Amino acid sequence: MSDSTAVVRDLAQRARTASRHLALLTRADKDAALLALADAVDAATDRVVAANAEDLQRGREGGMAAGLLDRLALDADRVAAVAQALRDVAGLPDPVGEVVRGSTLANGLQIRQVRVPMGVIGMIYEARPNVTVDAAGLGLKSGNAMILRGGSAAASTNRTLVDTLRSALAAQGLPQDAVQLLEGGHDAVTALMTARGLVDLLIPRGGAGLIRAVVLESTVPVIETGVGNCHVYVDAAADLGKALAITVNSKTHRPSVCNSAESLLVHREVAEQFLPKALAELAGAGVVLHGDPATAQLATEGIEVLPATDEDFDAEYLDLQMSVAVVDDIDAAMEHVRRHGSGHTEAIVTEDRGAARRWTAEVDAAAVMVNASTRFTDGGEFGFGAEIGISTQKLHARGPMALPELTTTKWVVEGDGQIRG
Amino acid sequence: MSDSTAVVRDLAQRARTASRHLALLTRADKDAALLALADAVDAATDRVVAANAEDLQRGREGGMAAGLLDRLALDADRVAAVAQALRDVAGLPDPVGEVVRGSTLANGLQIRQVRVPMGVIGMIYEARPNVTVDAAGLGLKSGNAMILRGGSAAASTNRTLVDTLRSALAAQGLPQDAVQLLEGGHDAVTALMTARGLVDLLIPRGGAGLIRAVVLESTVPVIETGVGNCHVYVDAAADLGKALAITVNSKTHRPSVCNSAESLLVHREVAEQFLPKALAELAGAGVVLHGDPATAQLATEGIEVLPATDEDFDAEYLDLQMSVAVVDDIDAAMEHVRRHGSGHTEAIVTEDRGAARRWTAEVDAAAVMVNASTRFTDGGEFGFGAEIGISTQKLHARGPMALPELTTTKWVVEGDGQIRG
Repeated sequence: MSDSTAVVRDLAQRARTASRHLALLTRADKDAALLALADAVDAATDRVVAANAEDLQRGREGGMAAGLLDRLALDADRVAAVAQALRDVAGLPDPVGEVVRGSTLANGLQIRQVRVPMGVIGMIYEARPNVTVDAAGLGLKSGNAMILRGGSAAASTNRTLVDTLRSALAAQGLPQDAVQLLEGGHDAVTALMTARGLVDLLIPRGGAGLIRAVVLESTVPVIETGVGNCHVYVDAAADLGKALAITVNSKTHRPSVCNSAESLLVHREVAEQFLPKALAELAGAGVVLHGDPATAQLATEGIEVLPATDEDFDAEYLDLQMSVAVVDDIDAAMEHVRRHGSGHTEAIVTEDRGAARRWTAEVDAAAVMVNASTRFTDGGEFGFGAEIGISTQKLHARGPMALPELTTTKWVVEGDGQIRG
Repeated sequence: MSDSTAVVRDLAQRARTASRHLALLTRADKDAALLALADAVDAATDRVVAANAEDLQRGREGGMAAGLLDRLALDADRVAAVAQALRDVAGLPDPVGEVVRGSTLANGLQIRQVRVPMGVIGMIYEARPNVTVDAAGLGLKSGNAMILRGGSAAASTNRTLVDTLRSALAAQGLPQDAVQLLEGGHDAVTALMTARGLVDLLIPRGGAGLIRAVVLESTVPVIETGVGNCHVYVDAAADLGKALAITVNSKTHRPSVCNSAESLLVHREVAEQFLPKALAELAGAGVVLHGDPATAQLATEGIEVLPATDEDFDAEYLDLQMSVAVVDDIDAAMEHVRRHGSGHTEAIVTEDRGAARRWTAEVDAAAVMVNASTRFTDGGEFGFGAEIGISTQKLHARGPMALPELTTTKWVVEGDGQIRG
């Protein structure tokens, strides 16, 4: 057993012990603790901002891109927002103890399926310190001990935040090991990914490369989140006004997130009418366009359309770029989505009931939409009140994941001496 | 790409294509096909029994144990039962299309979470030909294409059964590749376990070694099934008559299956009163006893209790053997279960409400029972009408798995032009 393995196993064992305590807390206990955690984060604002300044300086010296620096940065307002998110979680219903289904069997046995915490959940994510606090809060509310592995660029911030949370837990009489930060090199992450039996679930959150690595190396069960190569398909029967608004919103409202559209497909019959205006509006919003030849032909004077390669159609740009293709019909659109999509969110714009029914039935994705922006696939928008990620896998959770997705169930069977005959 | 990899990828690709067809079938289509499959199995009885005789002869020549030969054997009655199981599945509700939850958002978007098939499911199991037909039937009903890898000892039987099913599917105008048999050596299984993106779910069903190997080697999501080191804990406040009946039933009703009890824990206060009679009754039923020293002391004249090792307490005997220990209190019992249990089924016998509440809240297992035989953890007993296995993991499904557990969900979002502001 390597040093890292021993360290991680010890940490996971302590998380396990803490999780047994957490599983038995009432909602009142957990909500009180969440409010205390929020106050502690507020009280630690200066220390958190100072630690964050160290991370930002290291980032700048290391040539970190502006977008990443922005995701890393915490000023006093952002710290207040992070603390408020903990209070919001306190206001959400407790998933633990919910009876999912149940019945009384013919022999008098009473059976019920009850939500219970997973136990120990590991999260591996990038240098976004707000995720550290969000994950700790959602973990506590769902009765799970959390092992957090944030991007090393946020090391000082995460250390300060986790120290703050742990002290506040202890002050509430709760086990500090409900929240732990995993430090160390790649060895430590490997040890976490293979701590089967000690860690119940691993949630990687970040780019495609991170997620693929976790999926391939883990022996702990994993939920994949967040790779979104989302399409907007403008059907022959689309209302082109809606199509334009939905396309532009899906692409430009917040291009760095997974539910943004990366690709636009347009039915041949409406391409001539729709694309010149759509391309101009996208370009006007600063979007770099990658189109197939039919698309390029329809661009008006002065609108640049770069030639789209297969890599473009596969790309999750997370940026103001979009691939565009003209398709012969809905079948060709669905075939394109099948080949290039990532199973996140796929939208059709159409007034044709038949086309809408086919799209929602046949497209295989976490969310299939009719006449709506892809940006709506989101735990907050769906009314869940919180989100720990968006699952693009089929097992356990698909789409936005909130508190219930952080639980499992157990069957409680009560009898008075029944045996099988 | 090795030869096996190419073969398996081609097979999985054909399964994927078939799965798209299956996903759109109505319940009426699927039920009609299931009845036709049942008739085809009935009509093939002679061929199936003849193929099975070849497998049995090879088994006998290879020195296969009697229990395994029994699980492998199919006579005309068993073939009829296998066909009947398909008709029973036709009678079950269709999980596909069920709306799990939904709402209308403030902006008018209508969202609903709908059950849909997984897509392609691989099953790896031992030489039990009834599983071949059961899995094909449950797969068809839930709209999934199945890739079946049965134990090689059943090769001739499985080939005949799968040929029969595929011909019957074709006669119904359904894709034959909805059911495929994976042959070839370990290479082929490895290729199946790593066909990520083509296979949506892998269900290993069999002994602990098989399941561990699949979990460790797979990159395809896995549901672990069926390892059961189940305990009966006789509390200080137990009704000892119920305790005796539950212990004997849990151990001896069908010792070869995963929901049989393997271990008996007895509270010190009632050990002297309970154990002499319990040990005698178990021994009388042919159970080989492995006890701790306190247990051995309480055995009456002529009842042999072998010394129990840690391996005994870890063992899933699947046989007429049982480990027995005397514990100081319910905490010691729960600690024992935590150390040795497999998270399948854990029963307490008690009339004390407080002890029952602690057991059901604190013991971490797929099923926690009060005053009932562990043998009740079963899809049929729970009223599911069918069972593809019993999950002992926490992700996606826990406990008996039936048709809904073979599905995932998608979010269908319908609007009239909504964009995010």
